Amino acid sequence: MRGAAIINVGSELLMGKTVNTNAAWLAARLTLVGYAVRRILVVPDEEGEIAEAFREAMRRAEVVISTGGLGPTPDDVTNLALCRALGAEPTVNEEALRMVREKYEAAGYALTPERVKMAMMPPGARPLPNPVGTAPGVLYESGGRLVILLPGVPREMEAIFESHVEPLLRARGPPVYIAERVIVVEGVPEADVAPVIRAVMRAHGRVYVKSHPRGSEIAAPLLHIHIHASAGDRQEAESLAGAAAQALARLLREKFGERARIHEPGSAGAGAPAGASR
Amino acid sequence: MRGAAIINVGSELLMGKTVNTNAAWLAARLTLVGYAVRRILVVPDEEGEIAEAFREAMRRAEVVISTGGLGPTPDDVTNLALCRALGAEPTVNEEALRMVREKYEAAGYALTPERVKMAMMPPGARPLPNPVGTAPGVLYESGGRLVILLPGVPREMEAIFESHVEPLLRARGPPVYIAERVIVVEGVPEADVAPVIRAVMRAHGRVYVKSHPRGSEIAAPLLHIHIHASAGDRQEAESLAGAAAQALARLLREKFGERARIHEPGSAGAGAPAGASR
Repeated sequence: MRGAAIINVGSELLMGKTVNTNAAWLAARLTLVGYAVRRILVVPDEEGEIAEAFREAMRRAEVVISTGGLGPTPDDVTNLALCRALGAEPTVNEEALRMVREKYEAAGYALTPERVKMAMMPPGARPLPNPVGTAPGVLYESGGRLVILLPGVPREMEAIFESHVEPLLRARGPPVYIAERVIVVEGVPEADVAPVIRAVMRAHGRVYVKSHPRGSEIAAPLLHIHIHASAGDRQEAESLAGAAAQALARLLREKFGERARIHEPGSAGAGAPAGASR
Repeated sequence: MRGAAIINVGSELLMGKTVNTNAAWLAARLTLVGYAVRRILVVPDEEGEIAEAFREAMRRAEVVISTGGLGPTPDDVTNLALCRALGAEPTVNEEALRMVREKYEAAGYALTPERVKMAMMPPGARPLPNPVGTAPGVLYESGGRLVILLPGVPREMEAIFESHVEPLLRARGPPVYIAERVIVVEGVPEADVAPVIRAVMRAHGRVYVKSHPRGSEIAAPLLHIHIHASAGDRQEAESLAGAAAQALARLLREKFGERARIHEPGSAGAGAPAGASR
């Protein structure tokens, strides 16, 4: 699976004032289109720290997506930090400047230097229109590696991702279909279920199985076991996930009998075709 | 301000299956006791990746706290990864083994090799008792640097932090004064108050606000809202807490008017110097 990395810029995240829902949202969407997120990095609004995060992430992953730091305030420096990471001169992109100018002029505001800053990016990058807010996203491609800068406001980030980034990632193909199953097991401690999970993962290729303890390990063990399969077509993904779920339930019943109370809520999400709209 | 780094271990975070609330909780608590969180790193359940994250974090910060990967399953390898990062041989800690054995034997379970693994740590480390679950935390100190491994289950992580880690960080000084206010709100459900609390936390540095529901959420909502502020001296802490409490009360009145009956019992506790008991 191709690798991705997420960088979330924002001192509010490092002070615990904001829960990083952007990272979870992006990670789920990247997983769905066939990327393995290798690392999530949260860094402060400091140009040097952000530049270092870009350099680290670009060493690790084919697709790097950042959130935050694209606005007009002095601590919005993510675009400048990307330039620093690339050793490139921050340059006003005319298309981006037009986007920014239109937004502000429509609202009767002048184009101050702080607002012009929102149109600066490395030469060769291109702006991604922001249908919700004022700061455009940034797309930079080099040597098959994509770096994408998105705003930190969740609905702006989500809108740009859905309208511009996801289609791009899907178009890079090959098509990937994801199928998922959930099995709920009551009455058996996680440690006793672990060897069964291992056996299922060994026997079933392209399947990821992970148990999430929900009760208390000893007094009232309750596990949600997620089975995640991806494949080049929908039927194969569904059949991989289904076969792994069946095997897991059967092995758990064989090993624990009456002790294990197993529920299968069924498919947690149908396979979404990579190339098609959702 | 002294620096801290947070490492969250878990492929479920990188697949977007879980929102990283542990990072926000720890970041807020570390900020409150006087640490600047420099970076949050999320890495998969892979020993090499976790070891690299420890090495990076230890270069950046005086206190490194990880969550996740301390349980009995094969993908729980955070303790082994710390050993690898330090170039130390994973060693069974007898005190930790006693803790693990007691928990399992009390429930009638045997001490399998997977469970013994939960007691392994670098020589010189010590276990932190887990009052809620089975996996002990790990505390490793070297050259004035603290590395602390906590479980990923939030209430286990929070319990170990509050009973063992926070007192240790406060004892390391310099003195941090905590001031507290309580506001009681009748007549508004917790869910409606939550955005106001978030806004106050965002606007007020080194302030932590938490609501505790006391009545019944729908029939007779009653909330006790605790405001904690910390600073290097008592007067500043008191003034931070007072300003946040005033802002909170004002915003609640603006938003809910007559619906919200607000009481301010006054200071719930005078500023407690860091070294003193709370």
